[in-house]
Amino acid sequence: MGSEARPAGPVRAAVFGAGSWGTAFAVVLADAGCEVTLWARRPEVAEAINSTRVNADYLPGVELPAGIRATADPAEAARDADFTVLSVPSQTLRGNLAAWTPLLAPGTVLVSLMKGVELGSAMRMSEVVAEVAKVGPERVAVVTGPNLAREVASRLPTTAVVACAEEPVARRLQAACHTPYFRPYTNTDVVGCELGGAVKNVIGLAVGIADGMGLGDNAKGSLITRGLAETTRLGLAMGADPLTFAGLAGLGDLVATCSSPLSRNHTFGTNLGKGMTLEETIAVTRQTAEGVKSCESVRDLAHRHGVDMPITEMVVEIVHEGKPPVVALKELMGRDPKPERR
Amino acid sequence: MGSEARPAGPVRAAVFGAGSWGTAFAVVLADAGCEVTLWARRPEVAEAINSTRVNADYLPGVELPAGIRATADPAEAARDADFTVLSVPSQTLRGNLAAWTPLLAPGTVLVSLMKGVELGSAMRMSEVVAEVAKVGPERVAVVTGPNLAREVASRLPTTAVVACAEEPVARRLQAACHTPYFRPYTNTDVVGCELGGAVKNVIGLAVGIADGMGLGDNAKGSLITRGLAETTRLGLAMGADPLTFAGLAGLGDLVATCSSPLSRNHTFGTNLGKGMTLEETIAVTRQTAEGVKSCESVRDLAHRHGVDMPITEMVVEIVHEGKPPVVALKELMGRDPKPERR
Repeated sequence: MGSEARPAGPVRAAVFGAGSWGTAFAVVLADAGCEVTLWARRPEVAEAINSTRVNADYLPGVELPAGIRATADPAEAARDADFTVLSVPSQTLRGNLAAWTPLLAPGTVLVSLMKGVELGSAMRMSEVVAEVAKVGPERVAVVTGPNLAREVASRLPTTAVVACAEEPVARRLQAACHTPYFRPYTNTDVVGCELGGAVKNVIGLAVGIADGMGLGDNAKGSLITRGLAETTRLGLAMGADPLTFAGLAGLGDLVATCSSPLSRNHTFGTNLGKGMTLEETIAVTRQTAEGVKSCESVRDLAHRHGVDMPITEMVVEIVHEGKPPVVALKELMGRDPKPERR
Repeated sequence: MGSEARPAGPVRAAVFGAGSWGTAFAVVLADAGCEVTLWARRPEVAEAINSTRVNADYLPGVELPAGIRATADPAEAARDADFTVLSVPSQTLRGNLAAWTPLLAPGTVLVSLMKGVELGSAMRMSEVVAEVAKVGPERVAVVTGPNLAREVASRLPTTAVVACAEEPVARRLQAACHTPYFRPYTNTDVVGCELGGAVKNVIGLAVGIADGMGLGDNAKGSLITRGLAETTRLGLAMGADPLTFAGLAGLGDLVATCSSPLSRNHTFGTNLGKGMTLEETIAVTRQTAEGVKSCESVRDLAHRHGVDMPITEMVVEIVHEGKPPVVALKELMGRDPKPERR
């Protein structure tokens, strides 16, 4: 790791991806005292950030601290980085990282900010990172939790999880991103932390659908809880620690998503719950939501591991198979009585 | 149990307490096919319920099903009941139940709907029940979960937990209150289910305070998650199953409370977060909130069991010791960095 090579200097972090969350996390790192290079795909975005100190496309109105320097050159961004943070669209990670791998600083720790499952392979982001960059588990970390980008960039207080199979590496990353408004906790359960983020979008859609149907706050509490229960069942089958899902990467992230009027998954689900078709919803919101894609990947994982995920099944049936929400709800409530844990 | 004595007839349930939740749960029992007697303290309330089929004081606008008969005579209410459901103010349970104990049907199962801790003794409601009625754990059950009374009475869909140390008793109660809109799950962890309900009000106050300060949805997700983490630590020290708090009695109930604009704890906290004193808040809301009392009982339990509960401490300091919320928040965020689980 770079800290041995340069014991005297500040920690250096490269952030690949100048979207809203990549940029907001760059702000956290800079506020925590790191020297940050922020890679943007488009040179004009990098230039605008350096000259105006604002990322007008993704975080308008937020002044970026002096510790952040933007560049469109991946080699310049990657140079000497102790931490190489990855924040690109999930489905583009494999191709992007293959191009960047020869440029990475020796011993750098690769940090994923992404919440998705690769279509086709059903691989988690850290698995893609390990495979493409050919690094061991002590070189791959994940940051996740209740982190709506705009709130973080506005320095509103929050918590997060920094996960790495090697606890000392997680502690180093924790120190590199701890600020008065951003409180990271360490965790060694990388699988659980990533699954929590991926399934969250699916449960967020279900909660949105319920809100659109006017089902009330008891139903919201029920869906969030039983949604986490089925996520936990999947996690157990995949080797995760069940308590991770009760933590910031599961529950915390899900509650923030389901509370925020800005969440795409929630808004998208609300329109479906009001009776719109998938096509009408896409036309109205002019975009799709992450959960619309990942609900099929998650159901795929559930079937591979033989796990019962009734809320995920319901979301897939409503979103992709045109089942009316009231019919799906009736089936969900009419299942055989069960103990809370099996 | 009465079911052996009267195998052919319907299940009989007595509900003691005609407040909003007692009445709403009577509706659930009646809809599930039970014969229900609803005890009201004031005879005029019982008479009005029987003649108008409405509990105008507590559930205005909800027509009560024919399966509910109200009475102000506790002996009449208790007679032949398979389940005796208790839904009176927590601090009055001991005195009330002492008077009713001689009237209870032989073998009846006592079911607590109450979410509180007895002041002074720091006993949970089921402990008070067992002590006063002199019954074993197979005769005491708890119903809890995301159950805002007005939504349940309106037959909006929800889930719940029915907990009893004896699984077969929990299953019998589950069958007695399962309807198309009310889906109960069994659980044998009575301690955890009761603690979840009691601490919920304290965390609900904390979330209200944060909302009043305008801290955003990440903070909400963080407080709910870390609030459940400290509740879980207390539960472990008291012999509960940690997974209970990730379930409907912990998370589910907390999310419903924190989402509902009707929650007293939330509204009360919001006013404190805006900078009002306790006295000003009580003057404005014209009532106090359960969490205002129970935060001290919960802190008491934490100290007795040597458990660290920083959010509960913060609530006590803000509510009862006049600490400004911004100062409390700064201390909470500035604590030593930690792993997510210890």
